[in-house]
Amino acid sequence: MPTNRQITLAARPVGYPNETHFKLVESPVPEPGPDQVLLRAIYLSVDPYMRGRMRDVKSYATPVAIGGVMVGGVVAKVEQSNNPNFKQDDYVEGLLGWQEYAVSDGQGLRKLDPTLAPLSTAIGVLGMPGLTAYFGLLDICDPKPGETVFVSGAAGAVGSLVGQIAKIKGCKAVGTAGSDSKIEYLINELGFDAAFNYKTVKDYREKLQELCPAGIDVYFDNVGGALTDAVFTLINPGARVSICGQISQYNLEKLGMGPRMLWTLIVKRARVEGFLVTQFADRFDQGLQEMARWIKEGKLKYKEEFDYGIENAPRAFIGMLKGQNTGKQLVKVSEL
Amino acid sequence: MPTNRQITLAARPVGYPNETHFKLVESPVPEPGPDQVLLRAIYLSVDPYMRGRMRDVKSYATPVAIGGVMVGGVVAKVEQSNNPNFKQDDYVEGLLGWQEYAVSDGQGLRKLDPTLAPLSTAIGVLGMPGLTAYFGLLDICDPKPGETVFVSGAAGAVGSLVGQIAKIKGCKAVGTAGSDSKIEYLINELGFDAAFNYKTVKDYREKLQELCPAGIDVYFDNVGGALTDAVFTLINPGARVSICGQISQYNLEKLGMGPRMLWTLIVKRARVEGFLVTQFADRFDQGLQEMARWIKEGKLKYKEEFDYGIENAPRAFIGMLKGQNTGKQLVKVSEL
Repeated sequence: MPTNRQITLAARPVGYPNETHFKLVESPVPEPGPDQVLLRAIYLSVDPYMRGRMRDVKSYATPVAIGGVMVGGVVAKVEQSNNPNFKQDDYVEGLLGWQEYAVSDGQGLRKLDPTLAPLSTAIGVLGMPGLTAYFGLLDICDPKPGETVFVSGAAGAVGSLVGQIAKIKGCKAVGTAGSDSKIEYLINELGFDAAFNYKTVKDYREKLQELCPAGIDVYFDNVGGALTDAVFTLINPGARVSICGQISQYNLEKLGMGPRMLWTLIVKRARVEGFLVTQFADRFDQGLQEMARWIKEGKLKYKEEFDYGIENAPRAFIGMLKGQNTGKQLVKVSEL
Repeated sequence: MPTNRQITLAARPVGYPNETHFKLVESPVPEPGPDQVLLRAIYLSVDPYMRGRMRDVKSYATPVAIGGVMVGGVVAKVEQSNNPNFKQDDYVEGLLGWQEYAVSDGQGLRKLDPTLAPLSTAIGVLGMPGLTAYFGLLDICDPKPGETVFVSGAAGAVGSLVGQIAKIKGCKAVGTAGSDSKIEYLINELGFDAAFNYKTVKDYREKLQELCPAGIDVYFDNVGGALTDAVFTLINPGARVSICGQISQYNLEKLGMGPRMLWTLIVKRARVEGFLVTQFADRFDQGLQEMARWIKEGKLKYKEEFDYGIENAPRAFIGMLKGQNTGKQLVKVSEL
């Protein structure tokens, strides 16, 4: 009988997670019931938001239970179908979790056309990270031509797209990332106007002033912490700040403290807004179509990094939290 | 020759200002030139924003120079006019500063009809503080019937109007202020649903949970600091926060520190926006007309407190910064 390998949450981490917080569990491959499909995972996405789900705190989403399968977006192939909407060998994308096989009644599954784009993009540039960049920049910040857009975590799955979309919209794009090779990638491959390595630059504010001499009109924040403190001192009147992530804070053992910046918002008439990509669900198609067109036109580039085997999903996830990836971090779970 | 008494900035305060930071200066009453009017101050407004102008920091407005006359809104009477748009005995409102007499070319002066409303309201409920409450609540926060609106500094010139406008819009209005008599005023005279004295309540979060059991949908912040920290832990999904003032921070010797709250904005899909009332200048008339109607209908109440004589403007200002007033603090400079 074939085996399903799953990664479950073994313990709730305090600080950075490590491999002991996860457990590889084997069970029989499930049998699809009436109207269900059996799905085989091909690509698994690892994303910063998953760190939040490891906490025992009711947030916008239910935490993963101890012993529960870790949540995550997956590109999968239909192995067996009892559901008239899907047939064997269809490709789909859905929140199937960190496991090799899953059954589904089809709810929340998106069918994929493998001839339109590489399948892996369905959980990357043409999936949740892409939509996050698209709506988080365009809807929350409404960037205008000539404005300076600064993005933290600029070499990540979301940030790398934010800077490029800013360029498409006629803005100046400036970013930060955690290695010199990432900075080179941002400037030379993705067309950012400027970028700096936050691990080697000591004075963020001074560097930001140098790279953004006209101030910062739009800030797309994936990181938070001291970098964000510096940005707030340099925002322009009417600035818009989109809070997408705060990855610098996710693995702290207690709540971070920082300078109070609300006064700045008054004198700059500035807006700071948090968002979840799901709030734009009724316009996902619009976003995906426009981004697919930009990719086709060569205006939007993306990079994917792969780890291999469900057993290595924890390693890929931890590495992503530490910023080891450039672009989208994926786990290839099985062959197409 | 008649004398003009002015209050100038003598020194820049560190921490709370005291009377030594101001200087009473006497000079001859100025002569109006061609197209100018000579104005005699009747009422002077003292407002929290003036503390910011005492700093040597370029902000949205130029700081007051050492030796310069303190800025401030004034209701005045035209004593002499060389300007065809004004005649002797007209009443006007304008940014004339802390002084008994001023000359003006008429720019920025608003003519007042003393039969429509008491003249003092032109620098209160039907002036800048009223417009701040009106646009800061309605435009920045868009409160919906049934929502919970919490306002800090609720007994002040702006906050007392915010709570009442929230009630007019069908919201639950909850506030905080710094004395039991203010709390009684908010609930019994202004119709707030609930309020608490932040000076005697130890655990803000617990008290807020008790008074706002359905969470906080809209927060109108005049105060900042620990109170605001507590509010951010209780905002509802989709909350809107209007940053009007941060009076708890204005007199600190160095930048206050607090818990980082941007992550909260993500999971709550919440928006925090600073504003200056001047950004709504093209709709001031609309705001004034609607508020005048609410006053006439008995839906909007206001309270004014007076100190007397230009020489006491510093005392009135310092008292206002310390929260000694209920409602709008004014200085009566001369008789009508």
